[in-house]
Amino acid sequence: MTESIAAPTTDTVLAERRGSVQVLTLNRPDRLNAWTDELERRYFALLDAAEDDPEVRAIVVTGAGRGFCAGADMDDLQQAGTADLDAALKQRERPRTFPMTVRKPLIAAINGAAAGLGLVEALYCDLRFCAPEAKLTTAFSRRGLIAEYGMAWILPRLVGPSTALDLLLSARVVQGEEAHRLGLVDRVVARDAVVDEAVAYAQDLADHCSPASMATIKAQVQRDLDRPFAEAVADADRLMLESFTLPDVQEGVASYLERRAPAFAPLPTRS
Amino acid sequence: MTESIAAPTTDTVLAERRGSVQVLTLNRPDRLNAWTDELERRYFALLDAAEDDPEVRAIVVTGAGRGFCAGADMDDLQQAGTADLDAALKQRERPRTFPMTVRKPLIAAINGAAAGLGLVEALYCDLRFCAPEAKLTTAFSRRGLIAEYGMAWILPRLVGPSTALDLLLSARVVQGEEAHRLGLVDRVVARDAVVDEAVAYAQDLADHCSPASMATIKAQVQRDLDRPFAEAVADADRLMLESFTLPDVQEGVASYLERRAPAFAPLPTRS
Amino acid sequence: MTESIAAPTTDTVLAERRGSVQVLTLNRPDRLNAWTDELERRYFALLDAAEDDPEVRAIVVTGAGRGFCAGADMDDLQQAGTADLDAALKQRERPRTFPMTVRKPLIAAINGAAAGLGLVEALYCDLRFCAPEAKLTTAFSRRGLIAEYGMAWILPRLVGPSTALDLLLSARVVQGEEAHRLGLVDRVVARDAVVDEAVAYAQDLADHCSPASMATIKAQVQRDLDRPFAEAVADADRLMLESFTLPDVQEGVASYLERRAPAFAPLPTRS
Repeated sequence: MTESIAAPTTDTVLAERRGSVQVLTLNRPDRLNAWTDELERRYFALLDAAEDDPEVRAIVVTGAGRGFCAGADMDDLQQAGTADLDAALKQRERPRTFPMTVRKPLIAAINGAAAGLGLVEALYCDLRFCAPEAKLTTAFSRRGLIAEYGMAWILPRLVGPSTALDLLLSARVVQGEEAHRLGLVDRVVARDAVVDEAVAYAQDLADHCSPASMATIKAQVQRDLDRPFAEAVADADRLMLESFTLPDVQEGVASYLERRAPAFAPLPTRS
Repeated sequence: MTESIAAPTTDTVLAERRGSVQVLTLNRPDRLNAWTDELERRYFALLDAAEDDPEVRAIVVTGAGRGFCAGADMDDLQQAGTADLDAALKQRERPRTFPMTVRKPLIAAINGAAAGLGLVEALYCDLRFCAPEAKLTTAFSRRGLIAEYGMAWILPRLVGPSTALDLLLSARVVQGEEAHRLGLVDRVVARDAVVDEAVAYAQDLADHCSPASMATIKAQVQRDLDRPFAEAVADADRLMLESFTLPDVQEGVASYLERRAPAFAPLPTRS
Repeated sequence: MTESIAAPTTDTVLAERRGSVQVLTLNRPDRLNAWTDELERRYFALLDAAEDDPEVRAIVVTGAGRGFCAGADMDDLQQAGTADLDAALKQRERPRTFPMTVRKPLIAAINGAAAGLGLVEALYCDLRFCAPEAKLTTAFSRRGLIAEYGMAWILPRLVGPSTALDLLLSARVVQGEEAHRLGLVDRVVARDAVVDEAVAYAQDLADHCSPASMATIKAQVQRDLDRPFAEAVADADRLMLESFTLPDVQEGVASYLERRAPAFAPLPTRS
């Protein structure tokens, strides 16, 4: 329950280790955790640290207080001129899509409202656990905006182009149960339990699944969405042969035959 | 309730304005609205007119009488030789896929049977409202035909390749509830109410959503299905910066903060 | 009920004709039909024979005994060194993905456990019928393996990238009903009836659908997943014109108008 990075209580994102799972909490509760550049820098730095920490095997992201993330902070948005925004886009140390490059499983625990950029951040995660009361909306079309930061690419692959257009054209609010029916979230869990359930799922990954396998599989799924079947199969053949040279296969097969939990090595640090 | 284009009652497609929504009704009820070249020309012309009419913000298409559209007219099909069809394909003023280029939201209210080309036309729409009794079938494999006019591309993206093959190989009939479970339609609504509900949804888009945003988002979703994630994100960044130079963002944010309905400008006419 | 290929009872795959449907049964029940190179050669040869047999119009694959297929045989896996596997990959007469090139409908009747490569084989089929008790798992991440043989490409298209990551990262077991909700299987059928129902569906295809249409449509769906909409439409136009020169269209339209079952010709042998 100790924070892995020293953080004053005024931090825009909190970090707490629970077992092998790093829990990151967006922490501007008086603003429904609306996104700011400062919050983004802190979130990305904590993702980076979780990547490099051998004791962290999966990450859960949630929001403090009533909301998950209400989207880009309106005050920032009103102050910013276009030139500023253009400059801000280019100055950014890491692209906004950075969370999609994290090699460890990244799971959203959507405790409350997720709107616009807040929903984008939830969609960058591998899976979504969601409270029934949580209000989800793309928001963009009602503000005169477009489908930002890749949402027009992600959403049709997740829920099909028709549901994607429904949600993007209307920007209507859907709650947990409907979001689950539509494929927008993967689990509906009572609000009080949504973080615990996401952490339990993540801990199960940590206990039973090879970190190297999970990192490779995440990259395969992402790349395979952008390439033909034949290329995907050729890449899988190459990665399979590579996997046979690594210790996790022996441990995976041995632990299975011996009916015991596996002891997989941590994910190697990025070179 | 006035028709925006003068049309005798013998017209193959009827047009009626309801609020900001243009309702187009395929109108060959004695033939279950089977598709003919004449009907197509009229339908496309009415779509064109709706595009250019600043008072129209969304379009609903439905069928007169018991059916939505029974597919290509069998009489035409039997009379036509291959040479005629080849010539017809090339002579066509607009490609058959023209409805997918309409920039305003286009919603199908499937009141009854939609088969073959009739189902294709429903799939060209952004969303589908459907009566429980409506019979939907791809039809092709039972007539010795192939998956025509892009259905083999659209259907797997909408319902997944497995359900798509189920529907395309067997050409079995599915009705509203099953069609909804499979993701083939977005809403199931009692037959008497299916047009009204589609119009109400479309009017909600007209009342709350920026026409410019919706047009851009439609184009993004279509293009993003055909390109890699990185390209989609780069395009979204460009479009986002462009959106900040347009008046709808200010109106969208201001109306949100002032808790009032937005007053977005009509979609600019195509250049 | 006669086998179309002479086969001793020790055969690793059994073949039985039921009406127009060839039923292939993976037959290593004491090993939950675990996959071996010998089993693969036999399965592929039987698929080939079914392709060339004009009396076969569809194929069902299932498992003998309690399981469908438990994956690659563990004994083989433990014995094989990497060099062997690399050589084995290259020596293979046909690529492992060969079942996806079969032109006739190929339906899996998942009677029991399908794990790893066993699930891959089920996913290579066009549709999946599944017993409620059947346990399905990707298996790979728990053995230190990667998403093998194209599963990272197929699964996200079938169930969306989020459910695909859920199943691939965790390798958790899902059973029939959940597999159906997730889109992993198309029908849930009582274990005793799962082969019969799959055969009945396949026989319906044989009785009512043009073999030439089905072969073309299968190829269209596969190719269209890998190409842009405009190319798919252009290809469909070409194939449509070609279809009008073949006898099945006349028979398809005539049988429809005469309200009788069609008498379509068998699929022409591959040239």
